[in-house]
Amino acid sequence: MFTVIAERINMTRKRIKKEVWGRNAEFIAGEATRQAEAGATHIDINAGGDPAKEVDDMEWITRVVADAVELPLVFDSSNPEALESGLKLCNRPGTIINSITGEKDRIETILPLVSEYNTGVVCLTMDDTGMPADCDGRMRVTRDLTGALEERGIGLDRAYFDHLVRPASTNPGQARCVLDAIAATRREFPESHICLGLSNISFGLPQRNNLNRAFLAMLVAAGADGAIVDPCEKGLINTLLSSRAALGLDDYCMEYIRAQRAGRL
Amino acid sequence: MFTVIAERINMTRKRIKKEVWGRNAEFIAGEATRQAEAGATHIDINAGGDPAKEVDDMEWITRVVADAVELPLVFDSSNPEALESGLKLCNRPGTIINSITGEKDRIETILPLVSEYNTGVVCLTMDDTGMPADCDGRMRVTRDLTGALEERGIGLDRAYFDHLVRPASTNPGQARCVLDAIAATRREFPESHICLGLSNISFGLPQRNNLNRAFLAMLVAAGADGAIVDPCEKGLINTLLSSRAALGLDDYCMEYIRAQRAGRL
Repeated sequence: MFTVIAERINMTRKRIKKEVWGRNAEFIAGEATRQAEAGATHIDINAGGDPAKEVDDMEWITRVVADAVELPLVFDSSNPEALESGLKLCNRPGTIINSITGEKDRIETILPLVSEYNTGVVCLTMDDTGMPADCDGRMRVTRDLTGALEERGIGLDRAYFDHLVRPASTNPGQARCVLDAIAATRREFPESHICLGLSNISFGLPQRNNLNRAFLAMLVAAGADGAIVDPCEKGLINTLLSSRAALGLDDYCMEYIRAQRAGRL
Repeated sequence: MFTVIAERINMTRKRIKKEVWGRNAEFIAGEATRQAEAGATHIDINAGGDPAKEVDDMEWITRVVADAVELPLVFDSSNPEALESGLKLCNRPGTIINSITGEKDRIETILPLVSEYNTGVVCLTMDDTGMPADCDGRMRVTRDLTGALEERGIGLDRAYFDHLVRPASTNPGQARCVLDAIAATRREFPESHICLGLSNISFGLPQRNNLNRAFLAMLVAAGADGAIVDPCEKGLINTLLSSRAALGLDDYCMEYIRAQRAGRL
C-alpha cells in the first residue's frame, strides 16, 4: 500500500483561492473527485489563503471535500486552530496532520492534536537551524523527531517523514542526499512511513512532469511508501504502479495488470 | 556520459534476420541511423541467426552499419570467430565486445580478443554454476571477473558489468537485488562501468515500456552509467535525461534543457 497524498486543493494556488473565496463548492468537490479517481489515497487541504480567514476556509473546504469523497483528509497548516477546525468536522481512519518539523514550537503546538485526534503526522526533516544540507543532517533531525513522538506515546507507524528535496536546477546533488536519507530512514525506522513532496525537484525546469516521474521511481526504489503529488499529472500514477511492479512490491504485478486492463495506464 | 547501447540490430529478432538474409542494406542502415538519432552512443550487432552463417552475417552487418553511422559498435556473440570478423572490419574508439561471463571457457576464448583489439567488454555476472539468486552471488562473480581482467592487464574502466535482471512478472524481488548489486559494484569498483540489459524486467507484462522507464530511473539512481536498450522506445531517452538531471549528473540540467529546446523530450 502506497500513500498518495493529493496536493491540488491548496489555497496558495491562485485558482483554488479564488474558488474557495467564491464558495464554489462544485469546483472544489470536482478537484477532490478527480484526484480520488486518478489514484489518491488521501486529499490534502491547505486553507492558507489569508491567516485571518484560514479557520473559516478550512471548515468550508473540509465540509465540501468530505461530502465529495470517502478518502481520509490531510490537514495542511502550521496553525493549530485551523488544523483542529478541520479535525472536528472530519477525522476518518487514516487522517494525517501536515506537518511538524524539528522546530520546538511546532512540536509543542501540533503534537497534542496528533495525540488527541489519534492522527498520522507528516514530519519535515528541518529544524530551528534550517534545512540540513546533507543526509547526516536529515537523519539527525529524524532522530530528534522520533524522540519527540515516542516521548508522547505516538507510534512511528503514524509518522510520515518528508526529507524535503530542493530543485535540481539550483541544487544539483541534493536529490542524492534525499534518496540516501530515505534509505537510511527505512533501515533505521522500518515501521515509519516515508513520503516526499515530489514536485519541488523539477522547479524552474521545462516539462517538469518528466523529472517528477523519474524521481518518483527513484523514491520508490529507495524505500519511500508515500508521496505528496498531483495524481492528475500525466503518467505519474503509471510511474508509481510500474515502479512497484518492477520492484516486486505489487504481488505478481496484479495491481499493474488490473490498472492496464481498466485503461488506467 | 551515459553509455546507451542500442539493441535493435539483433538477428534473434525475426524481422532483422529476414532483412539481413535478404541483404537489405537500406533497412539495416536505417535501423542504425534511427537508433543513433534517438540517442544511442553504441550500436550493438548480434548476427546469431544461424551458427553456420554467423561470420558472414557479422561481416555484412558490420560493413553496412559502419557505413551508416559514426558510432562505435558492440559485437555481440559468444563465438570468438564471429567477434573477430567484425573487429577486423571496424574497431573505432569505444568498441565493446558483448560478452564474457564468469564461465571459464568464455573468459579463455574471448578475453584474448579484448586484449588484442583493446576493446571494452560486457561482463555478465553469471558463471558455470548459473545465474546467482542474490546480490552476494552477483558480487562473488563480479570479483572473479575483475580478477580475470586484472590478470590480463585489462583495466576495469574497460569493463561493463551487467547484473542480469529477471522478469518482474515471474521473479518478484529480483530487481531489488540487481539494484543492490549495482550500488555495491559502484562502491567497490568505482572505475568500472555498470550497464544493464533493461527490457528483461518487463517480459510477459502489458505496455512493457512503462516498467522499462521506471526501472531505468532506478538504475541511474543506483549508480549504473550505461544500459542496453532500444533507444527508439517511447520516452526512454526522456527518462534517461530526466533521471540524470534530477540527480545532478547533468551539470545545471543543461543537457536536459538542450534536449527540450530541440523538441527531443
